[in-house]
Amino acid sequence: MAAGLQVFGQPASTDVARVLACLFEKNLEFELVRIDTFKKEHKLPEFIKLRDPTGQVTFKHGDKTIVDSRAICRYLCTQFPEDGNRTIYGTGSLERASIEQWLQAEAQSFDAPSSELVFHLAFAPQLNIPADESRIAENERKLQQMLNVYDEILAKNRYLAGDEFTLADLSHLPNSHYIVNARSPRGKKLFTSKKHVARWYEEISSRPSWKQVVKMQSEHPGAFE
Amino acid sequence: MAAGLQVFGQPASTDVARVLACLFEKNLEFELVRIDTFKKEHKLPEFIKLRDPTGQVTFKHGDKTIVDSRAICRYLCTQFPEDGNRTIYGTGSLERASIEQWLQAEAQSFDAPSSELVFHLAFAPQLNIPADESRIAENERKLQQMLNVYDEILAKNRYLAGDEFTLADLSHLPNSHYIVNARSPRGKKLFTSKKHVARWYEEISSRPSWKQVVKMQSEHPGAFE
Repeated sequence: MAAGLQVFGQPASTDVARVLACLFEKNLEFELVRIDTFKKEHKLPEFIKLRDPTGQVTFKHGDKTIVDSRAICRYLCTQFPEDGNRTIYGTGSLERASIEQWLQAEAQSFDAPSSELVFHLAFAPQLNIPADESRIAENERKLQQMLNVYDEILAKNRYLAGDEFTLADLSHLPNSHYIVNARSPRGKKLFTSKKHVARWYEEISSRPSWKQVVKMQSEHPGAFE
Repeated sequence: MAAGLQVFGQPASTDVARVLACLFEKNLEFELVRIDTFKKEHKLPEFIKLRDPTGQVTFKHGDKTIVDSRAICRYLCTQFPEDGNRTIYGTGSLERASIEQWLQAEAQSFDAPSSELVFHLAFAPQLNIPADESRIAENERKLQQMLNVYDEILAKNRYLAGDEFTLADLSHLPNSHYIVNARSPRGKKLFTSKKHVARWYEEISSRPSWKQVVKMQSEHPGAFE
């Protein structure tokens, strides 16, 4: 692999998970480079905290380095259009425009409240941080509003951008996964209480690519061992 | 960590495991850098084979790079005499000479037959490679002869080089562990059939440092998931 693909980061990080899911969809060969810091006295909590869901991802392809997970996904899809899933970033300009619209909605509107809920519902309890009810309620409300719109769209479309699973859907998986699988059932309820969102999430989270990522997260435990 | 300690390799490798055990005994802060190669079609056997017990270890401390696991252990003990276990490489020249004698015996006489048995008893069955009975028998005989000598020494001494657990003992752990825990019971019998060797192995393999290594091997599965 003279100019091979390399990902630096922990699978437990949502940004790393997004990139891994894309690499598996595209069936590309790559190296995953993980760095774990062992503190004195083997303080396990320290070790686990380093693998938190906000951990950064770095991607290298030859001389090229990219650090934004969505930009990495776009790059993989445009550089390797013929590998693996060929429709994941659309095949025409209209399709791609629709995918891009959703990708940007995810990054600009879904990511912030869902990341806060990942922290408050999933990670804070593991780190024995008391629940911040007002932050949870506020972000639930924001996410709720978005998912209401998603539910309307998904009543008409099988996937967000149309009939095919695309980066638009994939990009939602990492945060949604942690929220749905948090100890507190209120996270799951956000997704299961909406008929079409529930059907959609079940479908996209069952893809072999995503299951492989979840397996890696459990093998290299973060807060969800 | 401007001039921090870094280990590159998989915990499943016996050479990496030797270095990790020493780092935990010395209670040193370090980074473990693991590189996993994901092949197309996620061929899991390929992925697992890369984590075989003959995998190399590379150690870096600032500008210094060492690739021999026993040399790395010596280096850690001489560079950080005051950290963690202070007696692991002896405190006087006579003690160190005795430890060195055993370290060299392990590297020159114990390592070759025990590594062959690690492969034939533990890894070959997992890779569906037929048992090579003549190689197994020959290496069992060689290891048997060595362990007979060990048993005599361990009848008089608690540990190989005297009253303290040292690098002499630690260095035997990685190969012994795979042999004792192989599917085939004949590996375990080599160690349990000798009273003093059995007592010694039980004791050294129960140390928290080694248990931590075994935990890491199971978290990052090699052939023994």
